[in-house]
Amino acid sequence: MQHESMKIPYSAVHPGTEATEIFFYNDCKDVFETLKKGREVLAYDGSFLRTEEIRRVYVTDTNVAALPQVHQFLESIPDSSVSIVLDAGEEAKTFENVLKIVTKAIDAGMTRTSVFTGIGGGVITDMTAMAASLFKRGAGLELVPTTLLAMVDASIGGKTGCDFQNYKNMIGTFYPASRIFMATEFLQFLPEKEYKSGLAEVVKMAMLYAPKLFMILSEQKDAVDRRDPETLMDMVLRSSRSKAAVVERDLMESGERKQLNLGHTFGHALETCAGLGVVTHGDAVAWGCARAMELSCRLGLTEDDSWKNDVFALLERYGWCTEPQHPALSALKLSREETAARLLAAMKNDKKNKDKNICCILQREMNSTVIQDVKDEDILAVLA
Amino acid sequence: MQHESMKIPYSAVHPGTEATEIFFYNDCKDVFETLKKGREVLAYDGSFLRTEEIRRVYVTDTNVAALPQVHQFLESIPDSSVSIVLDAGEEAKTFENVLKIVTKAIDAGMTRTSVFTGIGGGVITDMTAMAASLFKRGAGLELVPTTLLAMVDASIGGKTGCDFQNYKNMIGTFYPASRIFMATEFLQFLPEKEYKSGLAEVVKMAMLYAPKLFMILSEQKDAVDRRDPETLMDMVLRSSRSKAAVVERDLMESGERKQLNLGHTFGHALETCAGLGVVTHGDAVAWGCARAMELSCRLGLTEDDSWKNDVFALLERYGWCTEPQHPALSALKLSREETAARLLAAMKNDKKNKDKNICCILQREMNSTVIQDVKDEDILAVLA
Repeated sequence: MQHESMKIPYSAVHPGTEATEIFFYNDCKDVFETLKKGREVLAYDGSFLRTEEIRRVYVTDTNVAALPQVHQFLESIPDSSVSIVLDAGEEAKTFENVLKIVTKAIDAGMTRTSVFTGIGGGVITDMTAMAASLFKRGAGLELVPTTLLAMVDASIGGKTGCDFQNYKNMIGTFYPASRIFMATEFLQFLPEKEYKSGLAEVVKMAMLYAPKLFMILSEQKDAVDRRDPETLMDMVLRSSRSKAAVVERDLMESGERKQLNLGHTFGHALETCAGLGVVTHGDAVAWGCARAMELSCRLGLTEDDSWKNDVFALLERYGWCTEPQHPALSALKLSREETAARLLAAMKNDKKNKDKNICCILQREMNSTVIQDVKDEDILAVLA
Repeated sequence: MQHESMKIPYSAVHPGTEATEIFFYNDCKDVFETLKKGREVLAYDGSFLRTEEIRRVYVTDTNVAALPQVHQFLESIPDSSVSIVLDAGEEAKTFENVLKIVTKAIDAGMTRTSVFTGIGGGVITDMTAMAASLFKRGAGLELVPTTLLAMVDASIGGKTGCDFQNYKNMIGTFYPASRIFMATEFLQFLPEKEYKSGLAEVVKMAMLYAPKLFMILSEQKDAVDRRDPETLMDMVLRSSRSKAAVVERDLMESGERKQLNLGHTFGHALETCAGLGVVTHGDAVAWGCARAMELSCRLGLTEDDSWKNDVFALLERYGWCTEPQHPALSALKLSREETAARLLAAMKNDKKNKDKNICCILQREMNSTVIQDVKDEDILAVLA
């Protein structure tokens, strides 16, 4: 049963996709039914195709392909479509894999009206979207996010990409999907570590825009932890609505959308310094949110420490590190000062920063976000 | 001295570039002066930067870097900018080279407000633009086309790309430059072969939109051949104006812009079958224009053969092949039927085609273009 659907219209976007439509379901099977069902879909060139005539390149990874529901579905796709199963994990987020998807499409004789359909977590949805944007300068794109991170964050908003030279998402494009299908049932199959990684993005969305969501996370930890279906749908809907609203207003991240990087400037630096894949993205973002709040207080943006304390309390209740230096950094075997300097250098190379000071996303309080350049010494102060 | 400038506004485009500004000069030195001069330029994030503060990644190839004017300029760039010199030629249009440009930018600590400036022919401008579009999901982009092909065609309109698996421009993005600087003096340095390759695109533009340009090509062949400066400026201006007008109305090639592929469906197939780099792009396009006219007549689109005859006469006067099979195909050592079948198969893989029939750009007469799907048998008939 379809739970709800929403539509994000864009003012500036690739052809054939004036909007991203997002569909919410409880059960996985409803997503696959919809993919099988005949349904009119706008093709790249503006003409309408029925879905049963659409030739698709299904992209997934070994973990997702092993789920019985997905396995069964991929076995049943028509001969005119193809599927490719990539290795799972952040280490697989390479340009070589993006080209593998493109090659699959070339070998199958796909065209610009064909549709790339990514079924998986953020790594798969980002790479599928990047391949779709590059193939013959742009083919159709649909996403079926299967992780909490991909549902609430990665799949919405048109950012595509892969890692390059040990930098996360160093290359990529803006290329929104025409349709996104979310089934919260997928979240029941996630390993605890991945589920928790996604939760950090939910916390971030709550801090930025959704007081009610912050309350749910604080007060219903048990339901969140045991993945109560209603609570999952509530979290996914509230997070998606907030994200959709922001990217609708600022798809290209020239202003407001930068707020979504709360916790990410610090977080990406941690991921880079610890080595890609060592810390989960969520753990890094949660730690980054704590650092951002510490910095907000240090810079006098907050009236007092109460909002920082609320955030720290929530993060710690879920077991996230709020300390200046994340435990994963101890493997570097550097002094605290050297570690802080290493993090700062990684931040300088992060794509959101201009030539000089680091641009940080900070908060005065819940729902009140500030973007400003911060001096190196202040950043080092909250990292040492 | 600046000759003229024009501006192409877009409705859908990447941030910081609501339009492409094109500047026309006679002398190369004026382009370099402009690049050196302080001038306000809109940065990626909407802020204004003065050009002397802009950090640039200059991209060129060994041929262009060997020109004294370019060599001298690149020696004089400020320390905050960098340059990269790639191998010249179509064989260099690889994804590896696009990544080399990206790597140069990463190593130099460039950011999204940095500008990628491509100085060269279509291979360099396409690859520089692709690198700019991918680097951190999009940096600034300026182009200095140095060949006739790049001036009248490749640099205008936002198509970026590189070859992949023996297919021309199989991967790429739409990413228009914010500024394009054209100096017709560059055309004096072109080898005859490359100059003539660009002329084919001028002929194509004339067939599509510019009767006066067709007349100039027909009646002033001597001035065209000896590269008379005024004639060059006339050709470049007229072609650029026509191209700019089309891409302004249809940047993403969902309709009218497809007309610009006149001669290209056949031409790309020839380039693919002969092997990338064996036939110049222009020779392939000129041959393709002849095939398109032959097909237009065969399908009864034309009233009589007079427009086809005019086109054939012009093409032959400039020494282009108008025969069903281009001489370069004889190296395949296949029968005429096998060669035609090979060309058809390549056309089916070309990015402009949908799943079934080949979409062809045809003409009723000058300035009257038709886009339609054509059956395999009709295509084979004009190739055998």
